[in-house]
Amino acid sequence: MNFTIPPLDTALDQALQDAIDNKTKPLGSLGALERIALRVGRIQRTLSPRFHRPTLLVFAADHGAARAGLSAYPQDVTWQMVENCLAGGAGVNVFARQGGMAVQVIDAGVAHEFGARPDLIDAKIAPAGTRSYLDEPAMTRAQCAAAIETAAGIVRRLAAEGCNLLAVGEVGIGNTASAALLTHVFTGAPLADCVGRGTGLDDAGLARKRELLARAVARAALPADADPLDVLAEFGGFEIAMMAGALLAGAERRMTLLIDGFIASSALLAAARVAPAIRDYCIFGHRSAEPGHQAQIRDLGGEPLLDLGLRLGEGSGAALAYPLVCAALAMLNEMASFDAAGVSKNIR
Amino acid sequence: MNFTIPPLDTALDQALQDAIDNKTKPLGSLGALERIALRVGRIQRTLSPRFHRPTLLVFAADHGAARAGLSAYPQDVTWQMVENCLAGGAGVNVFARQGGMAVQVIDAGVAHEFGARPDLIDAKIAPAGTRSYLDEPAMTRAQCAAAIETAAGIVRRLAAEGCNLLAVGEVGIGNTASAALLTHVFTGAPLADCVGRGTGLDDAGLARKRELLARAVARAALPADADPLDVLAEFGGFEIAMMAGALLAGAERRMTLLIDGFIASSALLAAARVAPAIRDYCIFGHRSAEPGHQAQIRDLGGEPLLDLGLRLGEGSGAALAYPLVCAALAMLNEMASFDAAGVSKNIR
Repeated sequence: MNFTIPPLDTALDQALQDAIDNKTKPLGSLGALERIALRVGRIQRTLSPRFHRPTLLVFAADHGAARAGLSAYPQDVTWQMVENCLAGGAGVNVFARQGGMAVQVIDAGVAHEFGARPDLIDAKIAPAGTRSYLDEPAMTRAQCAAAIETAAGIVRRLAAEGCNLLAVGEVGIGNTASAALLTHVFTGAPLADCVGRGTGLDDAGLARKRELLARAVARAALPADADPLDVLAEFGGFEIAMMAGALLAGAERRMTLLIDGFIASSALLAAARVAPAIRDYCIFGHRSAEPGHQAQIRDLGGEPLLDLGLRLGEGSGAALAYPLVCAALAMLNEMASFDAAGVSKNIR
Repeated sequence: MNFTIPPLDTALDQALQDAIDNKTKPLGSLGALERIALRVGRIQRTLSPRFHRPTLLVFAADHGAARAGLSAYPQDVTWQMVENCLAGGAGVNVFARQGGMAVQVIDAGVAHEFGARPDLIDAKIAPAGTRSYLDEPAMTRAQCAAAIETAAGIVRRLAAEGCNLLAVGEVGIGNTASAALLTHVFTGAPLADCVGRGTGLDDAGLARKRELLARAVARAALPADADPLDVLAEFGGFEIAMMAGALLAGAERRMTLLIDGFIASSALLAAARVAPAIRDYCIFGHRSAEPGHQAQIRDLGGEPLLDLGLRLGEGSGAALAYPLVCAALAMLNEMASFDAAGVSKNIR
């Protein structure tokens, strides 16, 4: 596993900022959109950045620990939601379609036999999903590496086809629990601050989730300087390990990475331990309603675009934010400059 | 001036909420988008709301008070920005085009002779703009009523053509000062909390703006129960009075009103004094960086969709929010239900 991800150079920053400041608007008046335009210009090394073949990869997998009752929904919902995604009826399909993103679903280890399906990439790491981290590591280190490499290969093929904007989403009953554990270990935030209601646990369910996850942390007894692959293998879902690999390969190919919410950010935390400069390539789509997202954002240094109380997952928050990212580029590419429009730039 | 705007009835609420809750997602997991879907369903009285001919009206006018130096930019920028809008190069053009909204520019009283222009509605209330409220009322009550009625006529024609989503924006150097005065009078918030830097005043400019506006408030000495038309006539720009008229006519025609930031909300405050139920028809596009927007939102009871530090004006924040409003409708119209998708709805 070897990803070469350099920090973004700032050689074009002054020219980009000048271009932004010369648009017919008060200085700085497009706020966060100006910072996005600058970032994508850096990534693409141009004053006229454009997105090509924007793609949202939805990784799906089952979690052994989910059978202990960590989610408000039964485990069968994982494969049922994969079918829903394949049929185009899930939230992520609807929002991605609206914004013009392609969606591709990948079976990273769903405990269900889908048969041969033209629209589904079969990349099962294990046919029944992960083992339960309540009892043992969720996966072997070899499985974790395979998940990362498989996803990286998918993204490298996308890059070869011209894709330069990547979002990753997921389907996997129980995966907010996995993401909470990863967030706790990678950020050092108290476990209780990282655990939320997921798809809708009640108070008793939330208390039980906290208790089970605390036991998992105690069982694993990871050292403070644990290797990120060992942490992912201990607590990760296959879909989360694949998301990490997809993001790493995306940054390596100089894609703009549009980050969804809590689960995607847990994968990004792992990726950032492997290659810290990956942060430079990221735009955060939204602020998740899951409480642990705060610790993730503090660690990763992001600035989420949307704050709508979303907690659907699937990559839906990234899909909803995509039009805003496009708007930032449209500002650079389509807005008139003061000179061209004959508008007085000089402040009185 | 007579607008019939009934409060929205809630007869469909249960059916709308059931439809939203039956979509394949955890209960409530699309946050603010679910509340928008419910609201637009109420407005359109259907479980399948759709937008037709979404339109953003940009009203432009000059302010007599601006000649005293209330803005960081000279007054000529008003007509120059109108030309920029007509050429399609302003921020609002770029963002509206991206989202699929039509833009129509209206000259409400710009101190410039544009000549006959096919794309510009000539609706000048006075050829040189308003008088200076630093010395006298900005307009007569008759001018204010004419501005409201003229804009209402434009919107009624749009409604007749099938438009059912309306946003209003503006161009007018000095209009954050006018909006600050209206916000102070209509909400009762301290004037200092309503006055901001507009297009980019420095500290000295802000102090001067505060001082001049305090003198205007003292000069006008409006009674606490002043008629909203008298308040608008005293401090309003022609573009703000027209925005109020446009919003009133839009609600009367059961349009969804997508509210931009600080200037549009000052017009809405006036409209809400004329017809309080207009609030039911509104969706707030974004939280403006102008400090007075907070007092407006507290008064109007809104929940802005975006919070990106925007302070461009023109209606650009409404245009940027429009794709999210469409996403809320797409959720209702395109997402699969639990039954249709064969996904387990029952929480374990």
